[in-house]
Amino acid sequence: MDQRTEIGALGEFGLIEHLTKNIEFKNASTVLGVGDDGAVIDHFGRQTVLSTDLLIEGIHFDLSYTPLKHLGYKSVIVNLSDIYAMNATPTQILLNIGFSNRFSLEALDEFYAGVNAACEAYHVDLIGGDTSTSQKGFIISITAVGEVIPDSFVKRSGAHVNDLICVSGELGSAFLGLTLLEREKKIFEETGAQPDLEGQALIVGRLLKPEARKDIIEYFAESEIVPTSMIDISDGLSSDILHICKESNVGCILYEDKFPFNEEAKAFAYKLEIDPTACALSGGEDYELLFTVSQADYEKIKINPSISVIGYITEASEGKHLITRAGNKHQLIAQGWNHIKS
Amino acid sequence: MDQRTEIGALGEFGLIEHLTKNIEFKNASTVLGVGDDGAVIDHFGRQTVLSTDLLIEGIHFDLSYTPLKHLGYKSVIVNLSDIYAMNATPTQILLNIGFSNRFSLEALDEFYAGVNAACEAYHVDLIGGDTSTSQKGFIISITAVGEVIPDSFVKRSGAHVNDLICVSGELGSAFLGLTLLEREKKIFEETGAQPDLEGQALIVGRLLKPEARKDIIEYFAESEIVPTSMIDISDGLSSDILHICKESNVGCILYEDKFPFNEEAKAFAYKLEIDPTACALSGGEDYELLFTVSQADYEKIKINPSISVIGYITEASEGKHLITRAGNKHQLIAQGWNHIKS
Repeated sequence: MDQRTEIGALGEFGLIEHLTKNIEFKNASTVLGVGDDGAVIDHFGRQTVLSTDLLIEGIHFDLSYTPLKHLGYKSVIVNLSDIYAMNATPTQILLNIGFSNRFSLEALDEFYAGVNAACEAYHVDLIGGDTSTSQKGFIISITAVGEVIPDSFVKRSGAHVNDLICVSGELGSAFLGLTLLEREKKIFEETGAQPDLEGQALIVGRLLKPEARKDIIEYFAESEIVPTSMIDISDGLSSDILHICKESNVGCILYEDKFPFNEEAKAFAYKLEIDPTACALSGGEDYELLFTVSQADYEKIKINPSISVIGYITEASEGKHLITRAGNKHQLIAQGWNHIKS
Repeated sequence: MDQRTEIGALGEFGLIEHLTKNIEFKNASTVLGVGDDGAVIDHFGRQTVLSTDLLIEGIHFDLSYTPLKHLGYKSVIVNLSDIYAMNATPTQILLNIGFSNRFSLEALDEFYAGVNAACEAYHVDLIGGDTSTSQKGFIISITAVGEVIPDSFVKRSGAHVNDLICVSGELGSAFLGLTLLEREKKIFEETGAQPDLEGQALIVGRLLKPEARKDIIEYFAESEIVPTSMIDISDGLSSDILHICKESNVGCILYEDKFPFNEEAKAFAYKLEIDPTACALSGGEDYELLFTVSQADYEKIKINPSISVIGYITEASEGKHLITRAGNKHQLIAQGWNHIKS
């Protein structure tokens, strides 16, 4: 970025106008967008699903290795992922940002370019929000809105004994990307050496530019599958399956040898002497969908190459366990990524 | 507060459970609340109105004179006010908070007590949100959800020539409250003298515990009034009437002698040698409703003692003016409260 325009030159309303001037609505449900006291949507007899997240610089992201455009994209994705995890289709977002005077108008434009790219890719309308200065750092709060056929949303609490536990995509790659970037950052700080990300585009991409599993929700609709429970994997498989078990009052068995890994990511994990299974269980930020289906749906599930069956639901009294490749049985514990640590 | 419990002792999920354990839904439209990836609402054929705000310590509020319970209450109110300003009825909120380790569990409980009191008073359900640590200070992001009979929402852009300009309640009191508290804070910092707020409960209350004008929206419905345009006064009358003029492509005349003031607040303004009219025009944070109605509605408007007619809409070419008590004509300029100043 060659130019630096101070945001104060535009004022608050000028800034909002600048950032939102090219918005074109993609959804018939978007009745009124940015520019009034509120936005208006009409889901025409559908139910409305809402999810919101707060992302704070230094806590949730590190701008020393996160380009602002990627940050904008990812901020939208993590919220859309929550809407998909309800078996719903995202339709709109509201975006609040706070930023210190360290950020120029060009920097905000980069961030919004990422936000707009995600809205474009997922057919979502940006319909409102607030901009403010902050005392320190960059603060993002997004609320995502989606729609669902009445009462076909999927909660965490519906898993039944003998249901199959399924997961989309591959696990642990985002955590490996984070590990790599944190390592390179440390080397840079200590020695000034430029990052060596050679051949690691996949894992870095999984961390910096994740995607939400729109395709899985569409497959459910096409195949007439209604999962009995669902959650998106933001805190790691272990933590997230425990949420399903707790809310559904059931136990589970997971099989390590069924965990889906990307071969490239796995090779990198071994190079770093990290167990790929540990990355899957505790890594987080994969934004894959973890869900349970009735055994009757097995035939429909197994033909989708993006879905892996990794275990099954048991009685609560049987506990929550992982069966390792060696056949050992370990209790699952929440060791997921937690912003509020004791 | 005698006790101090570190938030880390509960963990993120324990904290959310603790803060939201007593929620009982007040609205039939609330299908699913806190505890899943998303919340679900069903407005049963009504349109959904959404508004969101970001409030940052040191920018939007000063905890040295703002009790956390009041802050919780006010954070909800400012968002509900936006929903009312769309002629809609608020039904749910989502609440994100970020806080540094300076804040104890007891402090968050105080904040939530205020949030819950506002939800109770306005019959609104808290249905979701996110909690996070922050690097510095207290950060609040609220999204308010409301419902409206299809296409009966009121925008800023519908004012017509000759429409009456109306305002609810009294203007400028919140700004006087802010001026008083800032003055007492400065005296305390310089001399250690305890604040002298004697007899100033009204203006301090207007700043720290504002209310949203639910009653006005209800009066519109009862009286079959549909304003032609509406906005809530958050940035000051001057700035907010200019929004209506800009969006509606009209001009306006306001009459200073029609501005509604509280007598107690006015007396305090004179004591401080501040012009009450300046407080009304530029003070902000009154959270009163500013709206325009067709002249045909005048009889219905004038019998409501909470509504004052303060001017009328003109052709855009006639400009935006204030007629003072002395009969002088001044151009209205946006000098409202602006978080992003150049």
